[in-house]
Amino acid sequence: MGAVKTKRMPRAVREQQMLDAAVRTFGQRGYMAASMDEIAELAGVSKPLVYLYLNSKEDLFTACIRREATALVAAIRAGVRTDLPADRQLWAGLRAFFAHTAQHPDAWSVLHLQARTHGEVFAAEVTAMRDEIVTFVTQLIAAAAREAHRNPDLPEREVAGLAEALVGAAESLAAWANATEGVTARQAATTLMNFAWSGLGDLMAGRPWSPPEEEPLTRPGG
Amino acid sequence: MGAVKTKRMPRAVREQQMLDAAVRTFGQRGYMAASMDEIAELAGVSKPLVYLYLNSKEDLFTACIRREATALVAAIRAGVRTDLPADRQLWAGLRAFFAHTAQHPDAWSVLHLQARTHGEVFAAEVTAMRDEIVTFVTQLIAAAAREAHRNPDLPEREVAGLAEALVGAAESLAAWANATEGVTARQAATTLMNFAWSGLGDLMAGRPWSPPEEEPLTRPGG
Repeated sequence: MGAVKTKRMPRAVREQQMLDAAVRTFGQRGYMAASMDEIAELAGVSKPLVYLYLNSKEDLFTACIRREATALVAAIRAGVRTDLPADRQLWAGLRAFFAHTAQHPDAWSVLHLQARTHGEVFAAEVTAMRDEIVTFVTQLIAAAAREAHRNPDLPEREVAGLAEALVGAAESLAAWANATEGVTARQAATTLMNFAWSGLGDLMAGRPWSPPEEEPLTRPGG
Repeated sequence: MGAVKTKRMPRAVREQQMLDAAVRTFGQRGYMAASMDEIAELAGVSKPLVYLYLNSKEDLFTACIRREATALVAAIRAGVRTDLPADRQLWAGLRAFFAHTAQHPDAWSVLHLQARTHGEVFAAEVTAMRDEIVTFVTQLIAAAAREAHRNPDLPEREVAGLAEALVGAAESLAAWANATEGVTARQAATTLMNFAWSGLGDLMAGRPWSPPEEEPLTRPGG
């Protein structure tokens, strides 16, 4: 492995390349089956260099979880625009979430599946991210309820429960969408919007939520 | 440990006592921290007898997962009555689910948290149960959509996605309800009913779903 040519480049850049390779390998093979040899080869560096920079398989996996958790939370926050009406805010947030998880399926597998399956330490990393998202969604729902004026008294506990339900539904749907051939990020976001905004009652009655008209329905992918 | 007096009783009864003790210990302490000594003591049997009957900590944990998964699926199936209108069916199913998870918090912790955190073999056991529930919910939603007549063409893929969203929301909410002081099973079921049936749009507009009148709203607990 020492024979692999490695051009001189800043440590930070090299580390990101290692993490790219690790996320891909952990996501596709699973944490247990992934080997450091494979990750080093995919990153185009020697295995000792991976250990020198990231210390151990455990630390490398933790670094992957942290980087991908930060990226996902940032993507959701960037997607939400609080100047929009509540349904448009939710739509924008869901679009951002499903676009990110569809574009980074290995990262989503690391966060949603691998990190939660291989011990309490890794699971705790994901729980911290999830708590942050739930808090963010809780604030959005509470703000939307206040703005609607029609139901300013939606109890705090009810709002917290709704946020938990929404986040759980989104996680479940993202895993399903990534595992199901031909389901686009937009379709997954639309399904959850129908579910979360209109509810099954309106859906059964043939009243789905409709995306805003300025965005063509036929836009593929993200 | 051999000094613990064990009355003669059928193996099947003894095994259930061991599983009761194991579910409680795994659920409260976590899989790693739970000791076979503790489980044997709680079951009122010797540790060698636990090994004789259940073979190993891994096998004991697997037996716990299987028993509790079967019980949860049975509780949901028993709760749903397909002769009711769609919203009442959903309400009955959610009531059954949240009542069961609230009454058996250690079992829910084993299924939702412990089994998924400690390796792929245990996680696969829970995935099998989850797949069964998703299939069941998918059939219910499809049947409800057909009966409503108003939207007989709800696409199959959309129905599958809605079932994933509903199951994910329910899992998330059950974990939250069990971890949150003073949230009853009925409140959790009502929150999810509001979310899943009425949708956030109707909630914001002050139009929550209302439980059927014959069941008093003040009934505590399950």
